[in-house]
Amino acid sequence: MTQQTTTKPAPTTDYTALISSLAKDARAAQMRLARMSDIEKAAALRSAAHALRAQKADILAANEKDMAAGRESGLTDALLDRLKLDEDRLEGIASAVEAVAGLPDPVGEVLSTDKRPNGLELSRVRVPVGVIGIIYESRPNVTIDAAVLCVRAGNAAILRGGSEAVHSNRALHAALAEGMAEKGVPEAAVQLMPTQEREAVGAMLKASGEIDMIVPRGGKGLVERVQNDARVPVLAHLDGICHTYIDASADPEMAREVAVNAKMRRTGICGAMETLLIDSDFANGEEVVSAILDAGCEVVGNEAAQALDSRISAAQASDWDTEYLEPKLSVAVVGGLDDALEHIARHSSGHTDVVISSDDKVTERFLNEVDSAIVMVNASSQFADGGEFGLGAEIGIATGRLHARGPVALEGLTTYKWQVRGTGQTRP
Amino acid sequence: MTQQTTTKPAPTTDYTALISSLAKDARAAQMRLARMSDIEKAAALRSAAHALRAQKADILAANEKDMAAGRESGLTDALLDRLKLDEDRLEGIASAVEAVAGLPDPVGEVLSTDKRPNGLELSRVRVPVGVIGIIYESRPNVTIDAAVLCVRAGNAAILRGGSEAVHSNRALHAALAEGMAEKGVPEAAVQLMPTQEREAVGAMLKASGEIDMIVPRGGKGLVERVQNDARVPVLAHLDGICHTYIDASADPEMAREVAVNAKMRRTGICGAMETLLIDSDFANGEEVVSAILDAGCEVVGNEAAQALDSRISAAQASDWDTEYLEPKLSVAVVGGLDDALEHIARHSSGHTDVVISSDDKVTERFLNEVDSAIVMVNASSQFADGGEFGLGAEIGIATGRLHARGPVALEGLTTYKWQVRGTGQTRP
Repeated sequence: MTQQTTTKPAPTTDYTALISSLAKDARAAQMRLARMSDIEKAAALRSAAHALRAQKADILAANEKDMAAGRESGLTDALLDRLKLDEDRLEGIASAVEAVAGLPDPVGEVLSTDKRPNGLELSRVRVPVGVIGIIYESRPNVTIDAAVLCVRAGNAAILRGGSEAVHSNRALHAALAEGMAEKGVPEAAVQLMPTQEREAVGAMLKASGEIDMIVPRGGKGLVERVQNDARVPVLAHLDGICHTYIDASADPEMAREVAVNAKMRRTGICGAMETLLIDSDFANGEEVVSAILDAGCEVVGNEAAQALDSRISAAQASDWDTEYLEPKLSVAVVGGLDDALEHIARHSSGHTDVVISSDDKVTERFLNEVDSAIVMVNASSQFADGGEFGLGAEIGIATGRLHARGPVALEGLTTYKWQVRGTGQTRP
Repeated sequence: MTQQTTTKPAPTTDYTALISSLAKDARAAQMRLARMSDIEKAAALRSAAHALRAQKADILAANEKDMAAGRESGLTDALLDRLKLDEDRLEGIASAVEAVAGLPDPVGEVLSTDKRPNGLELSRVRVPVGVIGIIYESRPNVTIDAAVLCVRAGNAAILRGGSEAVHSNRALHAALAEGMAEKGVPEAAVQLMPTQEREAVGAMLKASGEIDMIVPRGGKGLVERVQNDARVPVLAHLDGICHTYIDASADPEMAREVAVNAKMRRTGICGAMETLLIDSDFANGEEVVSAILDAGCEVVGNEAAQALDSRISAAQASDWDTEYLEPKLSVAVVGGLDDALEHIARHSSGHTDVVISSDDKVTERFLNEVDSAIVMVNASSQFADGGEFGLGAEIGIATGRLHARGPVALEGLTTYKWQVRGTGQTRP
């Protein structure tokens, strides 16, 4: 690791050298960023929001280029919709930047202090992680959302977005960089990968010591590739196979409403319920599954579940490990809490699991024994979101166990250092 | 990840299956361990200390087997000394277990709480990391030291020690397991790898999702191999290239005493000073280097440093990046704080760096701008140690930036989960 800055090499196919050069510039910029105050960083982000609005015309024109190329190359409507920017969406992006500017700065927080018998004064102080690589698909908004979270916590970002959005990303990045530069943020604090070559992504993933953390933002394919190839620590979640367990003591109406919401509010998000577990002693299983079916959801189930409604077909073994991300649900009638806990332990992806119950013994056991990033009582799993958790924004939801778990916001983009103040102590 | 326990397969060369089986048993045991109270875990460790003392004869006999084989195979005296157990060392191991039993249990600590406008109550609660793999060399004490730290924080451990210590490790593990089992700790909470085959280590390193964290304990070769091959997160430090910068304002006597201690107290530990940076305006550089030379240390330096003492020979470029771990020191006379910060940024391994100064402006800049796990003012870098930091014990010192940094003790063997308590909330 070094602060030494080097000038970028001439166009090259040595992607390791390219990444190394980007990372060195990022490191130098990050060191300066780390010394900026809360107020200075917030002002820079507000200036960026201003620039995004001021350069609306350029950004939308660049996006139209991407949209035209996308239609040309036959992108699906869904992908085109992700790619599209308009005045409302751009305003949404700019307001989100202002919202992040308004979040408390985690850097400098003293996590613990101690004075040793020999007089040494120890403190653990929150510092930025450093240089963060963001690898994402063709959602131009991520270019801004991810970069501003990194900068708010004093990190430098290296962004590599999807090729379909390359013009949009360049225009958005130009506005962001210009706005932040006006308030003294070094240009290299946020860099856009200068090439779309996949080898450059590979080099990014291998740049341990130069890039401190990689955050993949996208579908399972992208995240899997990043997790498999990365030598740099990765903050990511792969699956959201979220369970809801309805205990015998559950309030029937609450169970119905929470279950329908957990599955159907939005079926495509990682916090959507994929498996419903119903205690065989719960008296109102029929009403719950029929409400879900009536809401337009396909339901597969185990034998006991199929007995609840004729519209339920038989689940395959693979269903219990499937993240549908669509209006489809697997339902199992189970023999109580222990069965439910065992099913969840075997099939949960460790993202979010929920119990509906009015029995404190059941809810406390569920909270303690389900080993997932988020465990909920009597609420919809669709609340699994940094904004809903009051974190202001999220860089992602982590299902790994180390560093940060669940919704990751500014705090997850920091680490700590030990500061030790002595008066000449030597160790005996 | 699954709680399902399976019985171990018959002796096999399918190391992936072997590790998978060990890890599944470990996971099931860890789930039970996680539900044991602070008092129960502490009692189990005290019982283990008792068993270690009670089985002294067996343990020392097993160790003598290893020692004999080691002499046979021509191990160096240094390696034989690491391998050797005697009554005193065994008593030291047992007392260390009791000390860990006396440490506060980090599990269950509530890290933060929040109540959302919609009534959802959030809390972040500290939980064990889960299943931890420890890979170490032929120091039998690590078998116990590492295992008890894992167990104290509610983790299961899979231990793979060096082949030269195999009999000692089995005897130590047997006593540990028997002592803990008497207090209800499942046998699989601490497992010794049943084979010494290197392929089994490779399978351990690849077992992501089954093993949550790997801690290598040993020399640079071991740590490098683990870091290169692991798909499981690794908590490790590679180098301890620790710097001490003597500022112009430093008290001469303090500078001399701290520098000599930082280098010479023990030259073989990762917190030992390897490079001394002296401000060209510091008036007493000669006295400091001559004291280090007189203490029996070889010194190499840059030109200006060589002018301080005729016994100083010229440093090679590689010296600035070398962890000597012996009575050898590289010295550079630098042009002040900024030069020192740049040198450290370029050459530090991010372990521990020290400034000797009586100028608060200098010390605060050093504390803030040196990007290492531990930054110290006016103290010997040899204090970089979990015990000296009041952590009671350490599993290692981490120079990575994520999860845990610097001395890692019980807290570094935990993570957190989000617990959300609702009253039927659905997301609009």
